[in-house]
This record gives sequence, C-alpha cells and structure tokens, in this order.
Amino acid sequence: MEAAIEQDKTKLPIGVFDSGVGGLTVVREIMRQIPNESIVYFGDTARVPYGGKSKETVTKYSRQIVRFLQEQQVKAIVVACNTASAYALEALEEETHLPIIGVVKPGAKTAVETTRNGKIGVIATKGTIRSEIYTQYIQQLNQNAQVVGKACPLFVSLVEEGLLEDPVTEEIAQRYLSGLIDVGIDTLILGCTHYPLIRSTVGKVMGPEVSLVNPAYETAKELKELLEEHHILRSDKPALGTNQYRFFVSDGAGDFQEFANSIFKYGVLSAKEIDIEKY
Amino acid sequence: MEAAIEQDKTKLPIGVFDSGVGGLTVVREIMRQIPNESIVYFGDTARVPYGGKSKETVTKYSRQIVRFLQEQQVKAIVVACNTASAYALEALEEETHLPIIGVVKPGAKTAVETTRNGKIGVIATKGTIRSEIYTQYIQQLNQNAQVVGKACPLFVSLVEEGLLEDPVTEEIAQRYLSGLIDVGIDTLILGCTHYPLIRSTVGKVMGPEVSLVNPAYETAKELKELLEEHHILRSDKPALGTNQYRFFVSDGAGDFQEFANSIFKYGVLSAKEIDIEKY
Repeated sequence: MEAAIEQDKTKLPIGVFDSGVGGLTVVREIMRQIPNESIVYFGDTARVPYGGKSKETVTKYSRQIVRFLQEQQVKAIVVACNTASAYALEALEEETHLPIIGVVKPGAKTAVETTRNGKIGVIATKGTIRSEIYTQYIQQLNQNAQVVGKACPLFVSLVEEGLLEDPVTEEIAQRYLSGLIDVGIDTLILGCTHYPLIRSTVGKVMGPEVSLVNPAYETAKELKELLEEHHILRSDKPALGTNQYRFFVSDGAGDFQEFANSIFKYGVLSAKEIDIEKY
Repeated sequence: MEAAIEQDKTKLPIGVFDSGVGGLTVVREIMRQIPNESIVYFGDTARVPYGGKSKETVTKYSRQIVRFLQEQQVKAIVVACNTASAYALEALEEETHLPIIGVVKPGAKTAVETTRNGKIGVIATKGTIRSEIYTQYIQQLNQNAQVVGKACPLFVSLVEEGLLEDPVTEEIAQRYLSGLIDVGIDTLILGCTHYPLIRSTVGKVMGPEVSLVNPAYETAKELKELLEEHHILRSDKPALGTNQYRFFVSDGAGDFQEFANSIFKYGVLSAKEIDIEKY
C-alpha cells in the first residue's frame, strides 16, 4: 500500500517560487537536468521586488506562497529567490512537511569548491547582503574563506528593462564591482536569480580569471538528489498533451508571459493570476 | 452646533499616500503652501512599486490605504501617486465621503495653461502611460492638444539609488526623452512623483525651451482651494510640541526615514510600520 502511494507521489509537480520573473532561471535549470518533472511556478509580481523588504515581510509573503503551492499538491518546494531563501527558508522548513530547498546553500557550496585563493564575492539584493547568509554558509564549509558582499539594487531593474548587454549596465556593473576586483576575489556568486541574465556583462567587467557561480545550476542538481533521497524522482515522461509546466503570478500575467518568453526558450504558453493575499 | 463641528474639523490632518517615498515631493509642496496643516503620510513600501502593476491591484491597494487613513481621522485625502490617481481615483471617490484629490488632474491643467504650441509630453510609469489618463484630462481642457506619453520605468530605481545627477541617469534620460524632443513638445509633465527629484537632469536633456510641469505644486494649490471650499482649511498653527507630521509605511521604516531625510529638508523624525493588508 505504502509503495503505491509513493509511486503516485512521483508524478506530482515540483513547486517553485520567486518574487517575480527571476526564478525562471532556476526553472530553466530544473527543466534541463530533470526533464521528466512537472513544475508549478509562482511569481509574486504584485509585490515584487523582495530585495529591499524586511525579513518579516518576506517571510509572511513566502508563507502565503507555500500555502498556495501546497494547495497545488506539489511534492517538493524550491525557493528560487535568494532574498526569500536568506530570510524565510528556516521558518518555512518548520511549517511544511514537504522537502524544501533554497538557492543560497547550493550556491555557497559551489563557490567553496570553486575558489582557489579563498576570496569569494557575493552580489545580491540589499536584503540578501544584509542577512549575511552566504557568509554564514560559506564559512561553515571553509572557516578561512573571506567573503565580500555587495548589494546591486539597480541590476534587477536593468534586467527587467531588457538592458542585458548595454553600455549603461556595464557602467553600473563597473561601479558596483570595482571594490570586489580590488579585494582580489577569484569567485563571484550571482546571488540574485535575475543576475544570470547579465552574466556576460558581469563576466566582462570581472575579467576571465574570476569564476562566476550561478546557484540555479547547483540548486537543480541538489533538487534531483533530494527527490532521489525521498524516492519521489519521476522516472517516466508525462503523457503527451499534459500541461507539464504551469505558471501563476499575483499580477500582470500578460507582462510576465512576454518577459518570460523573451528570456526563456521553452515558451511560457500561459500564466494565470491568483490573489496571493488570500493564502 | 454645526459651526462647532466644522471648527473642530479644520484641526484634523490631511491624509497623503503614495506607493513609497515619491509622494514626499507632494508633502513638501503642501507644507510650503499651507503650513498650518497637519499631515498623515502613508507610503506602501511593502508593495512598491505600483507603476508596473494592474489597475485591479492598484485599486485594491489604494482602497486599503484609504481605510487606514480614515481610521486616522483625516479630513481630506491626497492621492500623491500618479499610478494610483490614474487607476483608482474614480473608485475611491465613490467610496469615501471625504474630499479627495489626485495629482493627475492638476498636472494636466497646468500643462494646458503652459503650452504654447499645444504639444505636451508626459513621462510616467507604465501604468500611468497605459491608462492614457493625462491625455484624457488634457484633451477635455483643450481638444486640439497633442499629447505624447513615454514610460520611463528605470527612473524610479535610479532615484531610489540616489543617482539624481549622474551620467548614467543622463544617458537613460537621453534614450527615454529623444522621441519627445523629435516631436517638438514645448511642455513636459513629470508624471511620477519620483521625477521632480531628477528635474535638473531631465531639464538638461530637454533644453531650456521646454517647460517642466511638476504636478505636486499645482496639487497643493488645488488642495488649498478644496479645503477652503469645504470650510476645513486650518487658520491657526498647531500648538508647539504637537506632532504635526506623522509618517507610516508598510515596511522598512528605517530605510524610509533615511531616504526621506536625504531628499527632505524638513526632517522626518520617525516613521511607523503598519500591516496594510489588514485594512
């Protein structure tokens, strides 16, 4: 009997959420690495951005979203937002029985494995930097590592305005990143899910000797391990015609779809608006 | 008896709200033009920005704020946010018995009085531009006026990052505004309450022959007239030691205060956080 229930569970979707569109870079990695899985994505577009908001507010919002995802019968949850991972993951772990994973820990782990000189930079939102969560995780793994954080609040707006490779984005990147270059970091964590979209500009400013870490990649990898551990990794492909990927937002489904399709090669066919404050 | 009630009413504060800090440019004008008045300000910092959000969401948020301000016993309400004025003012007027005024109508009126060639530009958030509300008001006053709108979504982030006079802001302004220069407008409405803070950069790009209209100024003027009309304009100064100006936000009171004091010569002594979703 129990085996039968377990078997059913593998077919349930994975819940992924972010404050807006940034989490789609994590969805993309999950699709690539575990293509059999179904996904329910929620982007909190009515209350985006989270980066400048307080721990209490981000935790409250994350709790509402987890309740919504549970209603969608997901089998596991990915917090695909660095700010929410930094502020809310612990509280969420206490409240749900589902396997839940954030993007910060996997990113920290990769950075520690990557660095040669022990000097790691983190670029992220104000909230993530203020929380010092990357520093904590990194120093748990390597207590001698030196971690330098830098909040880059304009990057999210520049990405959402589509200025992915642009002199203005490069100029802003130079200002934000010059301190990290001076310190001599050899590894830089892209600690906000929007940032992989301006990876080439960041890479150009930092130079070829600095490794860029995209936590999305490692998160998808750890998610696969987590699903295996819980015996809920899906082994077969969903039937043809199944709606494998479903997208929900709290506002502006049209704008979300347009942006998603501009960065997202898989195609977001539709996004549905829900009232997240009810949860 | 009625006269006594009226007299009491004059001492009640004016409620002013915005999605965040931008509305402080309106507060500043009210302080200058009707210095006897007390003010209760609410900035919706937990859900900022409104500019990219839908009409339904902005209206819902505005309704909650009006309920909060009514609880504070305000005698009149100023919607010091262009997006909320564009999307929600009509709905709010139907729901409250209080005198209520937005920033769009006064801005439109001044622009019509200012233009010589009948070509008026409007820069604002996506929401305000999409609503075409400035065009409607302007053409009610002058049906031959030509109105050209341009959404400038990056301006809010640049202002909040403090880049008020900066080559990057100038470069972005040049891109956003070149179309308006080509059309030959002679009057430009700063249709977002953040924009007066980059007035000098916008003026530099547009050139001295283009008049910039700051709706905040005209809104304070119309507010005074509205209070007179309703016999609720305050004639005496609040007693020394009275807390004449009170500030509320939905998140990050510390950040709000810091930003407010950086742009605001009057000094925001304290800001209090409230849970706006309860209203």
